[in-house]
Amino acid sequence: MTRVGVNGYGTIGKRVADAVAAQPDMELVGVTKTSPDYGAEAALRRGYDLYAALDDRVAAFEDAGLDLAGTLADLLDAVDVIVDCAPSGVGERNRPTYEAHDTPAIYQGGEDAAIADASFNARASAPIRNADSLRVVSCNTTALSRLLAPLDESYGVEKARVTLVRRGGDPSETNRGPINDVVPDPATVPSHHGPDVNTILGDVDVDTAALKAPVTGMHTHSVNVTLEAKPTTEEVRELLRGETRIFLIPEDAGIDGAGTLKDYASDLGRARGDLWENCVWEESIRVQGRDLYLFQNVHQEADVVPENVDAVRALAGDVSREESVARTNETLGVGI
Amino acid sequence: MTRVGVNGYGTIGKRVADAVAAQPDMELVGVTKTSPDYGAEAALRRGYDLYAALDDRVAAFEDAGLDLAGTLADLLDAVDVIVDCAPSGVGERNRPTYEAHDTPAIYQGGEDAAIADASFNARASAPIRNADSLRVVSCNTTALSRLLAPLDESYGVEKARVTLVRRGGDPSETNRGPINDVVPDPATVPSHHGPDVNTILGDVDVDTAALKAPVTGMHTHSVNVTLEAKPTTEEVRELLRGETRIFLIPEDAGIDGAGTLKDYASDLGRARGDLWENCVWEESIRVQGRDLYLFQNVHQEADVVPENVDAVRALAGDVSREESVARTNETLGVGI
Amino acid sequence: MTRVGVNGYGTIGKRVADAVAAQPDMELVGVTKTSPDYGAEAALRRGYDLYAALDDRVAAFEDAGLDLAGTLADLLDAVDVIVDCAPSGVGERNRPTYEAHDTPAIYQGGEDAAIADASFNARASAPIRNADSLRVVSCNTTALSRLLAPLDESYGVEKARVTLVRRGGDPSETNRGPINDVVPDPATVPSHHGPDVNTILGDVDVDTAALKAPVTGMHTHSVNVTLEAKPTTEEVRELLRGETRIFLIPEDAGIDGAGTLKDYASDLGRARGDLWENCVWEESIRVQGRDLYLFQNVHQEADVVPENVDAVRALAGDVSREESVARTNETLGVGI
Amino acid sequence: MTRVGVNGYGTIGKRVADAVAAQPDMELVGVTKTSPDYGAEAALRRGYDLYAALDDRVAAFEDAGLDLAGTLADLLDAVDVIVDCAPSGVGERNRPTYEAHDTPAIYQGGEDAAIADASFNARASAPIRNADSLRVVSCNTTALSRLLAPLDESYGVEKARVTLVRRGGDPSETNRGPINDVVPDPATVPSHHGPDVNTILGDVDVDTAALKAPVTGMHTHSVNVTLEAKPTTEEVRELLRGETRIFLIPEDAGIDGAGTLKDYASDLGRARGDLWENCVWEESIRVQGRDLYLFQNVHQEADVVPENVDAVRALAGDVSREESVARTNETLGVGI
Ligand SMILES: NC(=O)c1ccc[n+]([C@@H]2O[C@H](COP(=O)([O-])OP(=O)(O)OC[C@H]3O[C@@H](n4cnc5c(N)ncnc54)[C@H](O)[C@@H]3O)[C@@H](O)[C@H]2O)c1
Ligand SMILES: NC(=O)c1ccc[n+]([C@@H]2O[C@H](COP(=O)([O-])OP(=O)(O)OC[C@H]3O[C@@H](n4cnc5c(N)ncnc54)[C@H](O)[C@@H]3O)[C@@H](O)[C@H]2O)c1
Ligand SMILES: NC(=O)c1ccc[n+]([C@@H]2O[C@H](COP(=O)([O-])OP(=O)(O)OC[C@H]3O[C@@H](n4cnc5c(N)ncnc54)[C@H](O)[C@@H]3O)[C@@H](O)[C@H]2O)c1
Ligand SMILES: NC(=O)c1ccc[n+]([C@@H]2O[C@H](COP(=O)([O-])OP(=O)(O)OC[C@H]3O[C@@H](n4cnc5c(N)ncnc54)[C@H](O)[C@@H]3O)[C@@H](O)[C@H]2O)c1
Repeated sequence: MTRVGVNGYGTIGKRVADAVAAQPDMELVGVTKTSPDYGAEAALRRGYDLYAALDDRVAAFEDAGLDLAGTLADLLDAVDVIVDCAPSGVGERNRPTYEAHDTPAIYQGGEDAAIADASFNARASAPIRNADSLRVVSCNTTALSRLLAPLDESYGVEKARVTLVRRGGDPSETNRGPINDVVPDPATVPSHHGPDVNTILGDVDVDTAALKAPVTGMHTHSVNVTLEAKPTTEEVRELLRGETRIFLIPEDAGIDGAGTLKDYASDLGRARGDLWENCVWEESIRVQGRDLYLFQNVHQEADVVPENVDAVRALAGDVSREESVARTNETLGVGI
Repeated sequence: MTRVGVNGYGTIGKRVADAVAAQPDMELVGVTKTSPDYGAEAALRRGYDLYAALDDRVAAFEDAGLDLAGTLADLLDAVDVIVDCAPSGVGERNRPTYEAHDTPAIYQGGEDAAIADASFNARASAPIRNADSLRVVSCNTTALSRLLAPLDESYGVEKARVTLVRRGGDPSETNRGPINDVVPDPATVPSHHGPDVNTILGDVDVDTAALKAPVTGMHTHSVNVTLEAKPTTEEVRELLRGETRIFLIPEDAGIDGAGTLKDYASDLGRARGDLWENCVWEESIRVQGRDLYLFQNVHQEADVVPENVDAVRALAGDVSREESVARTNETLGVGI
Repeated sequence: MTRVGVNGYGTIGKRVADAVAAQPDMELVGVTKTSPDYGAEAALRRGYDLYAALDDRVAAFEDAGLDLAGTLADLLDAVDVIVDCAPSGVGERNRPTYEAHDTPAIYQGGEDAAIADASFNARASAPIRNADSLRVVSCNTTALSRLLAPLDESYGVEKARVTLVRRGGDPSETNRGPINDVVPDPATVPSHHGPDVNTILGDVDVDTAALKAPVTGMHTHSVNVTLEAKPTTEEVRELLRGETRIFLIPEDAGIDGAGTLKDYASDLGRARGDLWENCVWEESIRVQGRDLYLFQNVHQEADVVPENVDAVRALAGDVSREESVARTNETLGVGI
Repeated sequence: MTRVGVNGYGTIGKRVADAVAAQPDMELVGVTKTSPDYGAEAALRRGYDLYAALDDRVAAFEDAGLDLAGTLADLLDAVDVIVDCAPSGVGERNRPTYEAHDTPAIYQGGEDAAIADASFNARASAPIRNADSLRVVSCNTTALSRLLAPLDESYGVEKARVTLVRRGGDPSETNRGPINDVVPDPATVPSHHGPDVNTILGDVDVDTAALKAPVTGMHTHSVNVTLEAKPTTEEVRELLRGETRIFLIPEDAGIDGAGTLKDYASDLGRARGDLWENCVWEESIRVQGRDLYLFQNVHQEADVVPENVDAVRALAGDVSREESVARTNETLGVGI
């Protein structure tokens, strides 16, 4: 039984907590919050123990009538692994605390790769040995790694070129723009996302160009991969269909974008309408010569969640990568 | 045990089906679809029997490999009540079929009031006697009725004036606008929503003005009610807090709009992030003299769902209105 | 000839500069910029003298190859009136500088009313006597004042209730949200906009409720006014038609929102597609009993511009208010 | 003096009319409208003669008090060239009428290539000889042709791969979506835009993938071109800077998207904020090996306008292509 804590109960943290709580070989010891907002109240309703992320906020929880089980220090002492889900860059500030408590830590993709012993993706990263910390790469990098790994294994990737049309903010972030604009972000090409893929797939040549659009639901990737071999369109579709964390959106299903994708996820009974899989439009997959094209949608709030579960096992569990992925998929229901 | 069918498994239909299936005194016999899209496939995965809404579409389901339990005619013969959830105006075209099968029917708010023996809202409409058909009023009318009924009972409503900032389309409707515009719709004031409230609350004087905005999540109502009495702000808050289908959003909860509201609903474990309640910002409630102001958000996809369940009981059940509401709330988890 | 400077050449400043430059009785001495961006370059192309708003930015302009005519201090010494168009709150910080140079100043609506000797609206505010500074009220307050003044004069305003659906950001502000949300802002009702109207129309009872929507084009006001008299709908239409800074959008013109309004403004040959007038949908105007309803759209970037020109004359000119308004309208082409 | 008529005075038609009216060697005889909306009224205010596009609408204009100079048949008899700017596909229905009147015609990009003797782009298409009709290619194809032609001439294009993030609708089209979604459209890759480029540049290998986003301002292209030669980044920037219908957005200008681009166009004094040029972010241009990357924005309402003017001269004028482009640029002010 691996005891797990989640530090930072926001968009990613709440999902990681739910996923950990669903694992038979893990125990969710508790989650931290910085302030007693609706998320904190709901965590308690869900039965999760609540810890103050910052010592000076304890009184605020008391004032709001929310019971605390302790502070971050208490949580760190009680767990085998802490999953840091604080905002981008805050993980770096939290690291000394984790180290002072000797608590193995998992960080998210908003942190620099140097924060951890290794960057992690269950499908694509190298075996983990003797690591005390891992970084689960970002939503975009996770999705690109899952896609490029099988392509590289089967056909060799000569060069990948991807345009990332990113969501401007998550549904709960009303202070994020743009409104009525698509913004090159960064305006320089290639963007940093390609090098980030190389923290997982060291040798794959991938250039990315990133835009920001006025949507909250999902990222959209327009992908081109020049392969070394010349598979048929049908062979690539078959290959991707075989990946458990890739969902091939069937033609004629009436799924045309993020709205219908999430509607379908909810139809399947998934909490939060979460899509943990890369969502690839089957009809968009096309090979011409050695050039492969496709569109995939990425649920930025969800795709890293099963990866975090597998990262916990990579750090503190005793099962193989394959076994971990199978368990995670089974318990969460990953794979459509 | 009331046997129920749902004709039209779209945004409203799929939610009504789930809600009916959750009632111990009801049996969901099946749902109809016009085409074998993702919704049909998911209905089958959920274990719902699928019927073809239109006879000439049977072959399309076969081609798609989706098993049909029959056609609409078969469903009508097997149920005590049919809930029509077809697109606005199509219910009118379906009515003769229901009548030919002698099947009591519930229609949605997209239909004219004249379609049914009575318009229905569990909180506010008059007792139903000897009705063979009911119309559950629209999402906006449902929300206004729930709000105005207790105000009128407690303080008397001299006049209500409401600006409805309506969502442009549901999340799954990518062909709906506007983009980057707020459109008076209709441009004439008052809009038809006020008279529709009068199908439920015959005597309440209410004027509405309607706009359409580029959002998919919820409607927002800016409400003014001139009361006959002069309650305090705190009394009105207390009154509304006592209503089970009104959720008073606490101050300082960090809930600022539709995004955080749905996030909270999901945090509470609700399927589809559904908010069946009127969501009223507590801090927005203010009485000045006899003038009450407040903002409420309405989840257009969800608020009519418990009303449909209660309408089924009003038509074919044998329990009181209060008992029905209590059961529906209990089984679905209505009330925050 | 009144010599005028504009401090802060952003959304409002660039429009005020153009409007001043178009007045036969005014000379635009120059405009200031804080950085050598596209606006600075375009100001020079337009033939406007450029001054550094901040002394420590002079080198940045030189590096960018943009010629400066001096700094703010030089501009203040060369003008009869400075129009402050710096961001909200920065005017307050600039005030001591203007006073040190003894330069009469006009501030914008983002500043507190206390910043100036009087708040100003050409149609509605009291006569200005012996003022050394004026504050042109905000876009929303300007529009409400223009509307309520004639109504109050002709029929008496018992109470006005207005829902303001505000644009989230200007078209050039890509860091502003919300995306896909309508946000009560502030969540308390009434908002501060009503009291701001009272800096112009001291005695009018007006309550406002404010929302923020994912649009950049215009604000939309849903207006209710309980009048003391009972004019007919046609009389109110006639009254508003007579106001030069109110545009009655004709029925059947095909104008349905901000997009078509701006398209029409451009069709009329207006620079920047600017709409200086309140845009009131004629068909939305309706009187029921003593209750008047209407929708108006407000071009936030433009409606205060003619008011600034009139404010310059109120501070430093020698013509009557009526004469000023007539000149401004004539030179700019205000009035559709 | 070439006499020109414009059939269909909408988004494109009104701009073509203005551009034609600005040419010293052309006379705008008149424009047609199907209904007496704001555009018709504004055309008259601008001094353009108005013709009824459809005979049965004559009475509607009379009822609205708008003077007609005649019907389409009259206009066709009075001009040397008719520019068809009717909605996509309607040009095909209008063709027999033009032919019956023996009036040379220019069609827009919404029509099939087969409609005209040749497809046209002033920079890139082959010389026109003995044509009686031309098709000015679509906004996206125009922009791609302008970009690829110089690249192919200077370095050879081995293969171009472009993701088109298209605006959902024009600012005046409130019935167009999507809201809060980015939609693959078409979901198959490559899209038809590549083959359309080949109607101009027959031999260039170009694959396109198209998305639709909730914006109204501009299209955004994420471009990759594998070149045959290996120019430096600086050489490509220099090459594109030399193209009169390409605007290289300077670094550090503070221009980050469509909003600021249009603001800049208005700052330059351009009517409607129109950007006739491809707008390429200078800092986005990067060559790695033989791979060129860049982002360009395309003002869908404007870029085809100078091309239409040149198309008129190609059909009915007596000057060279170069001379025509120079005149058009000079009179309109194309080139930043
Ligand atoms: N949201 C996404 O789309 C997404 C996707 C993949 C990865 N990530 C990464 O995940 C991490 C978390 O992002 P998020 O979107 O969940 O952010 P979030 O803002 O939704 O949640 C962060 C939570 O951390 C809390 N917090 C703030 N300071 C803290 C501190 N000092 N200690 C502990 N908790 C603190 C906040 O109150 C908040 O609840 C970031 O590194 C981000 O880059 C985010
Ligand atoms: N979506 C909302 O916000 C909302 C809210 C309250 C009430 N309503 C009302 O509910 C009703 C349904 O609306 P919706 O939003 O669920 O629509 P929808 O388009 O999401 O779903 C309608 C379903 O009916 C099916 N259908 C089409 N023709 C049919 C036929 N002849 N017979 C049976 N089914 C048919 C469609 O395929 C679709 O699955 C309408 O009256 C609407 O006005 C909708
Ligand atoms: N944009 C609107 O919708 C609107 C409408 C009415 C009134 N206003 C008010 O007008 C004022 C200006 O708003 P805006 O929208 O034009 O802002 P803006 O940000 O577009 O422009 C402000 C300009 O001032 C410059 N600036 C910054 N610091 C300065 C300083 N210290 N001195 C001089 N200039 C400085 C900025 O660089 C910028 O160019 C605010 O008070 C605002 O509340 C704005
Ligand atoms: N809007 C763009 O982004 C864009 C860009 C490049 C090319 N185009 C192409 O230009 C053409 C016009 O598009 P638009 O956007 O200007 O359309 P629009 O709808 O804005 O304008 C079309 C005009 O034609 C009128 N019309 C309708 N039927 C007519 C008929 N039978 N005869 C004459 N006029 C008629 C309409 O009333 C309208 O005023 C289309 O082929 C389109 O594909 C459009």
